[in-house]
Amino acid sequence: MTRDVEICEVGPRDGLQMLKGIMPTERKKAWIAALAAAGLPEIEVGSFVPPKLLPQMADASEIVAYARTLPGLEVAVLAPNAKGTARAIEAGAHKITMPLSVSRSHSMANVRKTPDEMIEEIRESSRLRGEALSQPVIEAGLSTAFGCTIEGRISGSEVVRLAVAAIAAGADEIGLADTTGMANPQQIKQVITDVRREIGDRLTGVHLHNTYGLGLANALAAYDVGIRTFDSSQAGLGGCPYAPGASGNVVTEDLVYMLESMGVRTGIDLDRLAEARRIVTAAFPGETVYGHVPAVGLPKNFIPA
Amino acid sequence: MTRDVEICEVGPRDGLQMLKGIMPTERKKAWIAALAAAGLPEIEVGSFVPPKLLPQMADASEIVAYARTLPGLEVAVLAPNAKGTARAIEAGAHKITMPLSVSRSHSMANVRKTPDEMIEEIRESSRLRGEALSQPVIEAGLSTAFGCTIEGRISGSEVVRLAVAAIAAGADEIGLADTTGMANPQQIKQVITDVRREIGDRLTGVHLHNTYGLGLANALAAYDVGIRTFDSSQAGLGGCPYAPGASGNVVTEDLVYMLESMGVRTGIDLDRLAEARRIVTAAFPGETVYGHVPAVGLPKNFIPA
Repeated sequence: MTRDVEICEVGPRDGLQMLKGIMPTERKKAWIAALAAAGLPEIEVGSFVPPKLLPQMADASEIVAYARTLPGLEVAVLAPNAKGTARAIEAGAHKITMPLSVSRSHSMANVRKTPDEMIEEIRESSRLRGEALSQPVIEAGLSTAFGCTIEGRISGSEVVRLAVAAIAAGADEIGLADTTGMANPQQIKQVITDVRREIGDRLTGVHLHNTYGLGLANALAAYDVGIRTFDSSQAGLGGCPYAPGASGNVVTEDLVYMLESMGVRTGIDLDRLAEARRIVTAAFPGETVYGHVPAVGLPKNFIPA
Repeated sequence: MTRDVEICEVGPRDGLQMLKGIMPTERKKAWIAALAAAGLPEIEVGSFVPPKLLPQMADASEIVAYARTLPGLEVAVLAPNAKGTARAIEAGAHKITMPLSVSRSHSMANVRKTPDEMIEEIRESSRLRGEALSQPVIEAGLSTAFGCTIEGRISGSEVVRLAVAAIAAGADEIGLADTTGMANPQQIKQVITDVRREIGDRLTGVHLHNTYGLGLANALAAYDVGIRTFDSSQAGLGGCPYAPGASGNVVTEDLVYMLESMGVRTGIDLDRLAEARRIVTAAFPGETVYGHVPAVGLPKNFIPA
């Protein structure tokens, strides 16, 4: 399978954690299997947070074990601290994303730690990984990197400082997350360029939200400056419980459509992606779902890349 | 007022012609006045088609006369043939857009003429304009330039051929319209580059739809290759009655937000734009309206360009 970009589906983590209902473990497995069958190369399948805080994620270990049986799939998870990392390593995750909010206020609200305290969690996680038999990739996901609903504007130099500090603490990769959807295409290009100047291709991906409708335009801007890894969420599920007003990740279906229509190979089959979507919409019939392409269907004579 | 881009609001024409209800003339005037007060430099205020075909546009002459009283406003209209152009000239429109479908099937369905017959209408319109006291700008709006719901893919070379022919027939400007929303950012850049190679800056603007969610991404792509004039529609009203499935122009509110957030000056005040929106939503309470920014409000500490 030749791909020009890697899309990481975050719906089973970022999407499900925002819903009130809990998706039964067997249905999660069916959804993840359907996403993998559609060609998603990487899926963030769960989060290693205390189950009493996020009961939707209580089955994370079992889900990771199942996802590892799907051929070729990169199994990603989120861990908010070193304790979570230890569980993620034990479960066998291939990749562990640690949220590192650039906004101090958002960081305190989200993980009850300052950004610099989170750097120490990354350092400890890196140490734990060094002792483990498996060697999962550790990514620092710089959330609120383009704006914060509490603090407003975010300093680009603080994004750069934390990206450098996270790499120094042992993170392998940096992702930039527009947790609140406040990024604009010009800013996307600027911040990516500034971060890359310091850490080069350790900056791998972007995680974009569609709060103000700029999700795809921001993805295009990131693509135009060389980003080739994108998070997105099927049906646009997701958001952040501590970022009021933030709603919806970039919709996987629409992102795949945009890229394929441009001749950029995602390796993802849009018809099979629609089958996976049906599992979600059937599981949460009352939930708001997003996506232009799922609503109107593919254009006449559409030819994927 | 220094602007980096010109946004032409097409809601009073493209938006209203798609609605079942008819907006009373006085309310139209109030809406157009509110749009002009918000800073829209150009508004397409009506269409010179037979009133029995489009009763929503029966008051076009009166609306043009009123819009001409608004200081500094460029008053644009649509005319599907030379007969309409004659009426538009008589009414005093500053700019007349003539639809020239690149797709022969769409052209027949929309204006019952082939593209080459429409070239003759442009030639005759240009002759009429030459005899008139006023000298309105004539724009050929190349519809279905990026895809057709009937024919599917559209040949880029046919777009170029018709653009050249329209200029030769007397059109002053060419606009490229993605009537069906089928364009993608790569294609936008390619077609604009190809057309500009032949007619240079006679290619002025783009008219984009959001059918597949790519409206803003396509606008960004057009901006990136130098386009500085954009049509859009308040609340995303509009579409084309002969392009099934096509729904919604690019939303003015979201387009203005994207550009201003990027530091691109539109000259448009987002708060006043929201006031104009209330006139539309009050007039058509049952109608589907679009727009992310109107739904969630501006981000905290947002600073326009």
